[in-house]
Amino acid sequence: MPYVKIEVTREGVTREQKQQLIAGITHLITDVLDKDPSLTHVVIQEIELDDWGFAGEQVSVLREKGITAQKNK
Amino acid sequence: MPYVKIEVTREGVTREQKQQLIAGITHLITDVLDKDPSLTHVVIQEIELDDWGFAGEQVSVLREKGITAQKNK
Amino acid sequence: MPYVKIEVTREGVTREQKQQLIAGITHLITDVLDKDPSLTHVVIQEIELDDWGFAGEQVSVLREKGITAQKNK
Amino acid sequence: MPYVKIEVTREGVTREQKQQLIAGITHLITDVLDKDPSLTHVVIQEIELDDWGFAGEQVSVLREKGITAQKNK
Amino acid sequence: MPYVKIEVTREGVTREQKQQLIAGITHLITDVLDKDPSLTHVVIQEIELDDWGFAGEQVSVLREKGITAQKNK
Amino acid sequence: MPYVKIEVTREGVTREQKQQLIAGITHLITDVLDKDPSLTHVVIQEIELDDWGFAGEQVSVLREKGITAQKNK
Repeated sequence: MPYVKIEVTREGVTREQKQQLIAGITHLITDVLDKDPSLTHVVIQEIELDDWGFAGEQVSVLREKGITAQKNK
Repeated sequence: MPYVKIEVTREGVTREQKQQLIAGITHLITDVLDKDPSLTHVVIQEIELDDWGFAGEQVSVLREKGITAQKNK
Repeated sequence: MPYVKIEVTREGVTREQKQQLIAGITHLITDVLDKDPSLTHVVIQEIELDDWGFAGEQVSVLREKGITAQKNK
Repeated sequence: MPYVKIEVTREGVTREQKQQLIAGITHLITDVLDKDPSLTHVVIQEIELDDWGFAGEQVSVLREKGITAQKNK
Repeated sequence: MPYVKIEVTREGVTREQKQQLIAGITHLITDVLDKDPSLTHVVIQEIELDDWGFAGEQVSVLREKGITAQKNK
Repeated sequence: MPYVKIEVTREGVTREQKQQLIAGITHLITDVLDKDPSLTHVVIQEIELDDWGFAGEQVSVLREKGITAQKNK
């Protein structure tokens, strides 16, 4: 009976990326924990940039300053 | 001090249904646990069909295939 | 696909009370929203009295002062 | 590694108020717990008035009756 | 800024399995969404079998009846 | 109607620190949002070090390597 919640800033996540997350996490959990996939639910929640704070600053403010969360920067 | 969160796919839940859930759950909890209703909060969160994954598939995809969550099917 | 989380202070909730909550909420949701019970998960989380704050005070402190959350007081 | 989630009814919370909450909570937590701010995330989630139940009633109904959550009433 | 919460019944999940979940989900998310791993937090919460309800029944009761959540059954 | 959840690694948070967090956050929220304190609930959840992952590693592993979350390092 796993339930997974993913919270991520709303910055253009596509339907395909969501499907990749849902499929990948379900596969990982059912594989590692030997769980029935039909008992595994994954919920994605996108958060507005004004509503996520990191290190005391709104992400919207960080983005205006050119600070991203990407790994390839 | 109970707090209840209900997550449900966004598929036409009406204001009246929400009120029925809030009234019913509050009544149940205050009855079973003998809690003061004014300490009981219930929050409903509707989730877009692209954002809920079941058995590794987006619910939006399941719905396109004609698979519903209704009990009378 | 409903998922329900109940947070309640840890004050002697019995196994039977938990079963009543789980059965009652599942019945209510599947009834009001016409959902398949096998897609309905309910999770109960008991919170220590030091870890729940109400009106700026720890519930453990409120209990020491004789303030309860019961409705029959 | 603190993570904080704030759920509040959607009633005109401004961007500046959100920033005050994020800055204030991050400062409080890093101060009380001696945590690195860059490990502290704060997420604000606004809830529609139909979706929050208090004492068994939708907040939208309470507001229609003139009942507010303000402290200065 | 992704934050992931995994809730799973407490049924002997090992430290190694937890590490596999944390590493796998972090890798998946940073890969699919191109996110900096140092902004990705994963929290696992194990739930007692009396506290998880599925289809209106406590999982502890389901287990006593020999009903498991494993996929290989 | 604010509800706040704080998740933090279980690393010796004292009862007094919890009370400081509860009092401070309640004061901040009621001050910034002009909310009635008796409608404000704060829940603290401590997470075992094996159960929190940061940048793909369990915090328990990070601590064994001497990596802390303190700001004064």
